[in-house]
Amino acid sequence: MIGGMMVGPSVHPIEAPPLTENAMPRPRIRMQSLQGMPATLAGFLLRFFQFSFSLASLSVISSTSDFPSVTAFRYLVAAVSLQCLWSLSLAIADIYAILVRRSYRNSTIVTFFSIGDGITSTLTFSSACASAGITVLIGNDLNDCAQNHCSRFETATAMAFMSWFAASPSFFLNFWTLASK
Amino acid sequence: MIGGMMVGPSVHPIEAPPLTENAMPRPRIRMQSLQGMPATLAGFLLRFFQFSFSLASLSVISSTSDFPSVTAFRYLVAAVSLQCLWSLSLAIADIYAILVRRSYRNSTIVTFFSIGDGITSTLTFSSACASAGITVLIGNDLNDCAQNHCSRFETATAMAFMSWFAASPSFFLNFWTLASK
Repeated sequence: MIGGMMVGPSVHPIEAPPLTENAMPRPRIRMQSLQGMPATLAGFLLRFFQFSFSLASLSVISSTSDFPSVTAFRYLVAAVSLQCLWSLSLAIADIYAILVRRSYRNSTIVTFFSIGDGITSTLTFSSACASAGITVLIGNDLNDCAQNHCSRFETATAMAFMSWFAASPSFFLNFWTLASK
Repeated sequence: MIGGMMVGPSVHPIEAPPLTENAMPRPRIRMQSLQGMPATLAGFLLRFFQFSFSLASLSVISSTSDFPSVTAFRYLVAAVSLQCLWSLSLAIADIYAILVRRSYRNSTIVTFFSIGDGITSTLTFSSACASAGITVLIGNDLNDCAQNHCSRFETATAMAFMSWFAASPSFFLNFWTLASK
């Protein structure tokens, strides 16, 4: 009798859960607090590395006497100077935001950061590529390192690439924040 | 009497709608059907332009006899060849998707497209920048266009840049799709 009562409800057709993953509402991941974004410690460290490497690139290329004779090196100086100023400004903004415990959730600010990061990192990358082309031409193709500052050109180019490596995560995280809003 | 009954409910305090925009659930924009994404006509046209420009760059740089003597030009040949193959493959995938009226909503496929676009467009851009550095060095700094194919080098570089201009929207739209999921 009791067994019959227990069996009774258990043979009700149980609705099978839908197997397609699209039908299940997935929990929306909050990307706001991800490390590396503005107003986080990792974000500030990224800015600090961008600033350090672009400053190192700028000082090494400026220490050579003959960089103004090559257009690509003049362009490198301009691009890493811009990267330097931009990264320094945003590093200060990050420090301020960390100290007052605020975060940049305003869509306009994130758009501005994202566009600025996109422009400066593209300029840094293109100037680093152009300088790398020239450096490889002088060093490998012409074998003319005797009367050129090959090692300094290589160092400056490498530092500009390092600055770009540090700038890319900032750009992509800002762009991701913008898109996931 | 009837008037009194009508007035009665109308003096209930009406809850004021919240004025802060964060409290209101904004309608979520569907980015899936945006033109320029895979499986759209604009997406196919972007792929077609990428393919055409990279093929033009490849044929122009290959027509010069002395491009293997410069590392940057050999790199340009490799990068635009890769861009050419990648864009052709995705153009065919787009045509197929348009013809059978399907779209690529699978997250894995969009990730694959996005990473592939990121790699090929970065390679194309870096090779174009390196070639531009060499071309400007030969043409402006050394004034040595008499014994070099300056105009062909410039054309190949310009075509590689055009290919990158067409590749960037594809990459950003795929990345945006990925982030807004």
